[in-house]
Amino acid sequence: MTTSRLEAFSDGVIAIIVTIMVLELRAPAHPTWAARAKVGPVFLSYGLSFLVVAIMWVNHHHLVHAVHEVTARLLWSNLNLLFWMSVVPFVTDFLGKNYRQPMAVALYGLDLALCGFAFYLLRMELIRQNEGNMRMAEHHASVQRKNLLSVILYLLSLPLAYVSIYASFAIFVLIPAMYFLPEKKLLSMDEGNP
Amino acid sequence: MTTSRLEAFSDGVIAIIVTIMVLELRAPAHPTWAARAKVGPVFLSYGLSFLVVAIMWVNHHHLVHAVHEVTARLLWSNLNLLFWMSVVPFVTDFLGKNYRQPMAVALYGLDLALCGFAFYLLRMELIRQNEGNMRMAEHHASVQRKNLLSVILYLLSLPLAYVSIYASFAIFVLIPAMYFLPEKKLLSMDEGNP
Amino acid sequence: MTTSRLEAFSDGVIAIIVTIMVLELRAPAHPTWAARAKVGPVFLSYGLSFLVVAIMWVNHHHLVHAVHEVTARLLWSNLNLLFWMSVVPFVTDFLGKNYRQPMAVALYGLDLALCGFAFYLLRMELIRQNEGNMRMAEHHASVQRKNLLSVILYLLSLPLAYVSIYASFAIFVLIPAMYFLPEKKLLSMDEGNP
Amino acid sequence: MTTSRLEAFSDGVIAIIVTIMVLELRAPAHPTWAARAKVGPVFLSYGLSFLVVAIMWVNHHHLVHAVHEVTARLLWSNLNLLFWMSVVPFVTDFLGKNYRQPMAVALYGLDLALCGFAFYLLRMELIRQNEGNMRMAEHHASVQRKNLLSVILYLLSLPLAYVSIYASFAIFVLIPAMYFLPEKKLLSMDEGNP
Repeated sequence: MTTSRLEAFSDGVIAIIVTIMVLELRAPAHPTWAARAKVGPVFLSYGLSFLVVAIMWVNHHHLVHAVHEVTARLLWSNLNLLFWMSVVPFVTDFLGKNYRQPMAVALYGLDLALCGFAFYLLRMELIRQNEGNMRMAEHHASVQRKNLLSVILYLLSLPLAYVSIYASFAIFVLIPAMYFLPEKKLLSMDEGNP
Repeated sequence: MTTSRLEAFSDGVIAIIVTIMVLELRAPAHPTWAARAKVGPVFLSYGLSFLVVAIMWVNHHHLVHAVHEVTARLLWSNLNLLFWMSVVPFVTDFLGKNYRQPMAVALYGLDLALCGFAFYLLRMELIRQNEGNMRMAEHHASVQRKNLLSVILYLLSLPLAYVSIYASFAIFVLIPAMYFLPEKKLLSMDEGNP
Repeated sequence: MTTSRLEAFSDGVIAIIVTIMVLELRAPAHPTWAARAKVGPVFLSYGLSFLVVAIMWVNHHHLVHAVHEVTARLLWSNLNLLFWMSVVPFVTDFLGKNYRQPMAVALYGLDLALCGFAFYLLRMELIRQNEGNMRMAEHHASVQRKNLLSVILYLLSLPLAYVSIYASFAIFVLIPAMYFLPEKKLLSMDEGNP
Repeated sequence: MTTSRLEAFSDGVIAIIVTIMVLELRAPAHPTWAARAKVGPVFLSYGLSFLVVAIMWVNHHHLVHAVHEVTARLLWSNLNLLFWMSVVPFVTDFLGKNYRQPMAVALYGLDLALCGFAFYLLRMELIRQNEGNMRMAEHHASVQRKNLLSVILYLLSLPLAYVSIYASFAIFVLIPAMYFLPEKKLLSMDEGNP
């Protein structure tokens, strides 16, 4: 299997994930202000998940670019990541409809933590492939630390949801912001050595 | 990230958007004339949105063709556009089911205005990349004026919906017509300098 | 726009059409024999539409292979075809749930007639492009005749549905069979001159 | 038709199949423990089907790699496989909602048996193409034996479901495990002769 095949399939799945979430946005039967108010949180949770999945897509692209050979371990690490990403539309809908319920907030945090951990495992395999390359190793180690931090923060959002859902929401907004900002650096690096 | 990757992902998302809208066309349980009459507006709104998204796809293709390098700004401008495009199936369904409600008409106009504005921002970044090229600059400036006009018209459809929904519908039909006609010119231009 | 881009986008849309139809197959809440009996016609209509769309995909592939340049007319003829194909999941579900209602049968026939006519228009544009090539012209003329025959038969299924739905079903089964058989000849021809 | 076109279309369909299954995971209206308990089996059946379809995707990829020419027979064998794979989301949802009903368990086993048999037919065509190649013939014969075994086991799960659903579930878990383990060997072989 070539890297481009792996990437094309992953991209297909991610494109579908990002788009089908909108199917959960059901048009209210009677467009009153109350009905619109109910659509609000569903829409916000959709927007947040769109951003999170878009960031994952960009990161996944950079990650796959560094792949030397598609081993069985890499293939299944990738499928593991796609599985947890494919659950995002479900937890997003669940959160949008029950955004005041700690369980819905915790479930959302749990799936994103599992996505983050799947990314961690996938990159572990990548690091093994790039063992000789010192410059890349340093870069990977720095990304892994950030990845681990986001997993810990997402896991923290689980118990926090039962204390205050707003604290969990703060984490959900903080992590994309954290990933969004240094994206430029990563991208320029990618351009530097294609 | 290469231009072809950006285009392939965008195309995937757009292909899904254009196709999933039909899922909102629910077959009535009892196929009476009354039930068919209810499906009518939903079908018409689907047809209109299919045309609008198809035009966006063609324009997006021409736009991406002029991209020199995929900067972070371009990447996120594109994801911003895809986000507002992904909301089209929702506002389409909302319009089809409540086509006499000003709020549904206004919401449809608002999303298309946001799509148009996202196109404007994306092209702004492109213009920055093509700064030296005088011939392209002139072409882009002309497309941007037309783009801005359509955004203003779509925004106008919001207050108009509360006066007369038919005035808003006239705008919704006018803008695709406006884009549909000069398409040939654009296409021939694209063929002239590949 | 290149032929491969047109084909990739069309393939994406067709792949989604063929797959989302299964979403209409709702699992009955209580798996009794009566519930299973109700799923039966929906499943059969899904199977028939899968076959019809698969044949369209194969034919579309052969057609696009003969394209010299993607003109605006060709682009919009293709989008017109994709629109009527995207309605197939809706008419399929409608037929599966109301297979004894003449209106549902007629609507199914109407959409397939419109798909066939869209194919006819698309090939008309192609014939214009291949005007000099005598060998291709003869091949196209023969395919167009068959295409026109299938459109007429599908249109015939509309009034027939109000006489006997079984006569319409016979047409729905006959046309795929008619297309399925000479497929081998077409394919071998395609292999002969790549 | 080229092998890459066949593969791209198949991949598109498989990516959609694997992702739309999650749409059946409906968020409960009231997130109580009882509601969560009901989501449990649906989620487990989704996870199992994700694994099964992922294994099919990997095997399909290896299979298509050995294709010399896309004959009509190969094309339709492949479409036959995609049809039965496209039914997986339906039987998965049916199983998840009625996991204690023998009929739901049997239907799941039946569809996977039909998928396995479609793989068998597809590889039969491939073996015909590779008739001269002794080394590949041996490899194919070994894969076919394993394929046939899994079809027989899936068929066995049908009557077993009416004796004990747990025996059928054991088969459903056993077969992916059986396929999952020797994947590495296959993959390394693929790398050995690209």
